[in-house]
Amino acid sequence: MEKGISPAVIRRMPRYYRYLGELLEDGVERISSNDLSRRMHVTASQIRQDLNNFGGFGQQGYGYNVQFLYDEIGKILGQTHMNHVILVGVGNLGQAIANYVKFEKLSFKMIGLFDIDPSKKGKEVSGIKIQMVDELEEFMKTHQVDIVALTIPKESAEPIARRLIELGVKAFWNFAHVDLDVPEGVIVENVHLSDSLMTLSYNITKLK
Amino acid sequence: MEKGISPAVIRRMPRYYRYLGELLEDGVERISSNDLSRRMHVTASQIRQDLNNFGGFGQQGYGYNVQFLYDEIGKILGQTHMNHVILVGVGNLGQAIANYVKFEKLSFKMIGLFDIDPSKKGKEVSGIKIQMVDELEEFMKTHQVDIVALTIPKESAEPIARRLIELGVKAFWNFAHVDLDVPEGVIVENVHLSDSLMTLSYNITKLK
Repeated sequence: MEKGISPAVIRRMPRYYRYLGELLEDGVERISSNDLSRRMHVTASQIRQDLNNFGGFGQQGYGYNVQFLYDEIGKILGQTHMNHVILVGVGNLGQAIANYVKFEKLSFKMIGLFDIDPSKKGKEVSGIKIQMVDELEEFMKTHQVDIVALTIPKESAEPIARRLIELGVKAFWNFAHVDLDVPEGVIVENVHLSDSLMTLSYNITKLK
Repeated sequence: MEKGISPAVIRRMPRYYRYLGELLEDGVERISSNDLSRRMHVTASQIRQDLNNFGGFGQQGYGYNVQFLYDEIGKILGQTHMNHVILVGVGNLGQAIANYVKFEKLSFKMIGLFDIDPSKKGKEVSGIKIQMVDELEEFMKTHQVDIVALTIPKESAEPIARRLIELGVKAFWNFAHVDLDVPEGVIVENVHLSDSLMTLSYNITKLK
């Protein structure tokens, strides 16, 4: 049923999930694709098309059941089980990510923080004691790790990623300013802040 | 010459810029689209096509002049002048962004930090004194602001954005967990961390 869904559709799913979550918070039980369309600034036909990729969910003329749709998209997005996350590089950005309040609500749980700076050893961020990168091997033996967040300089990202892949890591949330070279079967989701800033500056030049 | 370029091509430009910058650092003067293709994991024909959108830059059989291509893409991306940035919301993420080391190198300069918490007033982050959000109006009278980074909770994002738009702001770098509703002519570049995490968790479910 989910075969051949384009990455563009997948990219839009978290946004649907976010909007539906807001509707639930507002106590909305049912919404038409037209109303959802107005809220999200996406055409109603786009919404119908996107949701049809996953089998529909809508009853013609009755709109969507918000809770049902929210739950179904949640399932698609893997929000039905807890994803255990560790983070490597507890600098400013690393601390911000570790503190990122929504973690647990979104089915993500930070279970370990690692750094190479000995002066950080044992300090707590977000209730978790910082460990040394040397301790990664030992930690991985006793913990299920689903995602590794990399908030380290680009020079360190490749070697650390390679080491973690050998330890069985299959998914990276990469903030390092580099595209990681990973074998097939390993997933990387990049947050390249500078790419995003430059897209912005490009669009600014178009305004002028 | 740049009319009708698809957003997808524009999205890839910062990545070209990043790779070319690395080649320059490595002392590489000339590169063929095949070599660039191997490095970037993009097909050579995609590279030629993308760069043709901007008038080419390549001489058949000689490859690309790295410095020239870097400079030209830099111009396209608005890297020829300094973009002045202010940031609203000096929490963990705000501090990480304020400290984001590459700012100046990438033609972005942080010139002001604002928060609503009086206990932060006058404290320095990244060499800049934190001001109160009340002082925004005064600040905007005397400073050229090209981009506002919003690192605030979603509830505050809309009202602050509206206030800043009235003060003439045309571009937002939005980290708040909400899609801002802005009038035409105002640009928003979103960094939705949770959307990115959820794309990751979706892709993890596909691995299993």
